[in-house]
Amino acid sequence: LRVAPEFDRLRVVLVRTRNPLNIGAAARAMSNFGFAHLRLVNPYKEGFREARSAVGAASVLAAAEEYKSLAEAVADCTLVVGTTAVGRRELQHSLRRPEEGARLIRRRLRSGSVALLFGSEKTGLSNADLSHCHWVLRIPTVPENISMNLGQAVAVCLYELVRQAKPAHAAEQPPRAAAAEVERITEMLLDALHASGYVKPRGAAMAEEKVRRLVRRLDLRASDAEVWLGMWRQIVWKLREEEEKEPPH
Amino acid sequence: LRVAPEFDRLRVVLVRTRNPLNIGAAARAMSNFGFAHLRLVNPYKEGFREARSAVGAASVLAAAEEYKSLAEAVADCTLVVGTTAVGRRELQHSLRRPEEGARLIRRRLRSGSVALLFGSEKTGLSNADLSHCHWVLRIPTVPENISMNLGQAVAVCLYELVRQAKPAHAAEQPPRAAAAEVERITEMLLDALHASGYVKPRGAAMAEEKVRRLVRRLDLRASDAEVWLGMWRQIVWKLREEEEKEPPH
Repeated sequence: LRVAPEFDRLRVVLVRTRNPLNIGAAARAMSNFGFAHLRLVNPYKEGFREARSAVGAASVLAAAEEYKSLAEAVADCTLVVGTTAVGRRELQHSLRRPEEGARLIRRRLRSGSVALLFGSEKTGLSNADLSHCHWVLRIPTVPENISMNLGQAVAVCLYELVRQAKPAHAAEQPPRAAAAEVERITEMLLDALHASGYVKPRGAAMAEEKVRRLVRRLDLRASDAEVWLGMWRQIVWKLREEEEKEPPH
Repeated sequence: LRVAPEFDRLRVVLVRTRNPLNIGAAARAMSNFGFAHLRLVNPYKEGFREARSAVGAASVLAAAEEYKSLAEAVADCTLVVGTTAVGRRELQHSLRRPEEGARLIRRRLRSGSVALLFGSEKTGLSNADLSHCHWVLRIPTVPENISMNLGQAVAVCLYELVRQAKPAHAAEQPPRAAAAEVERITEMLLDALHASGYVKPRGAAMAEEKVRRLVRRLDLRASDAEVWLGMWRQIVWKLREEEEKEPPH
């Protein structure tokens, strides 16, 4: 993951967070996805900078800024986005799905700072908090359990932000074996099947077609095909060697 | 969020998890996104079912199944997917980005069970664990901090699975072989490689992992797996028969 320079303009704002471990977890997710600026509005407890679970998040925690009010915490931002579980009060706001919300946030980051707000574990963002927001981002959850862990909600939102930062290239596919090599493997396998008695002479023609299709369906990588060929060669050699030792009957 | 019926076929497998809070967090994310089946391989501590942070996750924890080995935990799955931070050892596997990986998992879930594996907090998945995997999913993180919190990694992966409301239509895939059958084929092949002299006793441990991966990469159809198993059984029988005939030397 390469960090887009405009991501330096995102501020993750935690409002009235109760559990220092959750602040640590949020910082850790920020660190994983390349975001540096954490802001805290009235955290309930001191000592969050030492949150133990925050592997790799020390620098984010050390640089975290504390504010007395949400208004001050978002003062320099040109877009303020709330996050929430769905509820009655959200009807006052546009609710956006993460994909769409992330697209709008990325666009805005090119020209100015954006605040992404997360409320307290118990009550989320209040109506007063939401009144500072331009719109609200909602992570889709099942109706039976809409309450996400704070650190996990931060991780999912930041993941969605970085997910499309680079055009999605499909994984490089390893090169596949050429037909000639696949055919050599087919022949070796048929040899082994004859030598072991799996294929009877009468059914040989049908077996050959069946085995050829079977081997093609493996869609072998070029590098694996070599390994298989070596294995088969050895097995066939051993089967034939034993055959020759046998007395004729 | 409406739960797709095929999501009932996903198994989230936590391997050697140390911290019960992380098990609770994983269960909570599963509950948020509508996944019910949690499997635990050798968790370090008792008492995970009471993990306190697991708001709304009680039913997932109560139904969690414990296993002594990874092989048993994935035995009924037709696709086994590891998760990891990037590293040297992963070069042996296809590494997929979450979007692509989620698409493949959703497709497979229509016809069979899928296991999604998460390793321990300290060490992740071992090479032996990874040898049970068809491929590996990697969440993109910045190189400076690739180590994600376990609960957050689970949340991000499951979010990616449910994110796309409309299922991407794709050609129906033939059902794949379950892990238990693939493991039987692996054992047969290893038997043949030993009997034929391809594998020397000194290199047996490394060969086993290598062969396990090789066989997983075949991604065998259920119907083909039966055929392969029959072939191998015959070949091994023949190799062993000849072995017994040989005079001791």
